[in-house]
Amino acid sequence: MSTTMGTTRVFNVHARNWSTQASSSDSSGSEKNDDNEKKLTVSSYWGVTPPSITKADGSAWKWNCFRPWEAYQADTSIDVKKHHTPVTWNDKFAYWIVQACKYPAHLYFQRKHIHHAVLLETVAAVPGMVGGMLLHTKSLRRFEQSGGWIKALLEEAENERMHLMTFIDIYRPKWHERALVFAVQGVFFNAYFLAYLASPKLAHRITGYLEEEAVSSYTEFLNDLENGAMEDIPAPAIAIDYWCLPQNSTLKDVVRVIRADEAHHRDINHFASDIHCQGHELKEYPAPIGYH
Amino acid sequence: MSTTMGTTRVFNVHARNWSTQASSSDSSGSEKNDDNEKKLTVSSYWGVTPPSITKADGSAWKWNCFRPWEAYQADTSIDVKKHHTPVTWNDKFAYWIVQACKYPAHLYFQRKHIHHAVLLETVAAVPGMVGGMLLHTKSLRRFEQSGGWIKALLEEAENERMHLMTFIDIYRPKWHERALVFAVQGVFFNAYFLAYLASPKLAHRITGYLEEEAVSSYTEFLNDLENGAMEDIPAPAIAIDYWCLPQNSTLKDVVRVIRADEAHHRDINHFASDIHCQGHELKEYPAPIGYH
Ligand SMILES: [Fe+2]
Ligand SMILES: [Fe+2]
Ligand SMILES: [Fe+2]
Ligand SMILES: [Fe+2]
Repeated sequence: MSTTMGTTRVFNVHARNWSTQASSSDSSGSEKNDDNEKKLTVSSYWGVTPPSITKADGSAWKWNCFRPWEAYQADTSIDVKKHHTPVTWNDKFAYWIVQACKYPAHLYFQRKHIHHAVLLETVAAVPGMVGGMLLHTKSLRRFEQSGGWIKALLEEAENERMHLMTFIDIYRPKWHERALVFAVQGVFFNAYFLAYLASPKLAHRITGYLEEEAVSSYTEFLNDLENGAMEDIPAPAIAIDYWCLPQNSTLKDVVRVIRADEAHHRDINHFASDIHCQGHELKEYPAPIGYH
Repeated sequence: MSTTMGTTRVFNVHARNWSTQASSSDSSGSEKNDDNEKKLTVSSYWGVTPPSITKADGSAWKWNCFRPWEAYQADTSIDVKKHHTPVTWNDKFAYWIVQACKYPAHLYFQRKHIHHAVLLETVAAVPGMVGGMLLHTKSLRRFEQSGGWIKALLEEAENERMHLMTFIDIYRPKWHERALVFAVQGVFFNAYFLAYLASPKLAHRITGYLEEEAVSSYTEFLNDLENGAMEDIPAPAIAIDYWCLPQNSTLKDVVRVIRADEAHHRDINHFASDIHCQGHELKEYPAPIGYH
């Protein structure tokens, strides 16, 4: 490991071109139907009124699954070739598991990149959630602070889910792909849960290698878009708002920022595993929050 | 349910008096010992450098378990008496469960408010995490957006954990309390997980009633502080930074803002249960993000 590869990167300070104001119960105006009436009655008893959020240009914010303050500009200056050389048995086992899963996936999807990405993202969004949840319950049980790692891992999970929300805008999975995702999630969630309970060191290493594969899959995807083997299309609106992309961005730009996210997940997870390997606990190191 | 009780509340726009800059690998200066060397080597290979964050006054931000942009000013204009009258069997069952747990807890803790609060918070931080995680995996499996509810529930869980982090600053639980928390978490986490899988309507109603009890426990706590039955003490530093409280705040102020948080959790969870009761799904309603 050479220290010359280390680059000091500037943290993503989240985009803050937004404003909120509480929406009044009367805002639905004359459009009240029965359904709205019901909704407003309940909502006003509990006082739970979602804010009406506007973008910098004054137009309404149209997403509920994420808000303007979660949007960010991806740092695409990544090293796509970074790799953790398996040294210990732990590393080798993690590497072998990911390789064993990679080959059938590549055989199955071949160059159907979007199909591959959709399935990959449903899997990739699991580790952060499982890790975040287990660290959360541990923090409660042991009455100790988390060093920010709970939030960092949950952010990773939410970031992965946004990747999925982006792809399903351009491709709706078929029923057999849905069945596959259902089965894979059932197995992977439980397996990763047990792996994290047994050895966070192993679990983070597995995720690190998984993200290395994600980086290389997205590189192939990007190559096929760049050399014309695959037709480029306009970027989904959700992606433009999430990564603060220019209005005329295309799928190529989207794949580039997603790949950068994966590279950052790779770095965080290998780093987390390294902390454990050195006999430390994650909470001893301040977590890299907002590190997409 | 009277609509006159509804108040339009202004959303907490998070405090944004902070600045970040990437900390360089050299920042530890001359204090390098073996441990630091190791840490820096790993950190610089993966490029994962946590930011050095400063407060508005230029002083260093000292918490890793939360960051300045999560701090907020609590809206304490709450209705402490708001209650969902159990109507359906579902409501009654939820109410009965919470009552059955409340009495032994009150008998056990009596007026040892801080002890009670510590145990209560380890339990209260579970539902949001379980609900958020289950909605996250559902969003992935079904390829559909969450309406922001994943984030809203995860925020609730993190907010509850911050309550706990505040109390452990003034009281460190004894070994038998730790054992109790361990056992209670084991049972409650799994029970709530199954309840949420079986019926989110029931699960959110249970949490709604749990939060009603939290509001009333904190009201008793506050009364004892106000009438002098319990000695008031300076507020923990973490609480001052998290709720943006004045420097000379006391425990009384802290209990008041925590109680406001609980009232908001109560409202969100009863609201969520109401949505389900009306045959809707949470994702149809934009979630109240940042609604502490
Ligand atoms: Fe991803
Ligand atoms: Fe990733
Ligand atoms: Fe709480
Ligand atoms: Fe609460």
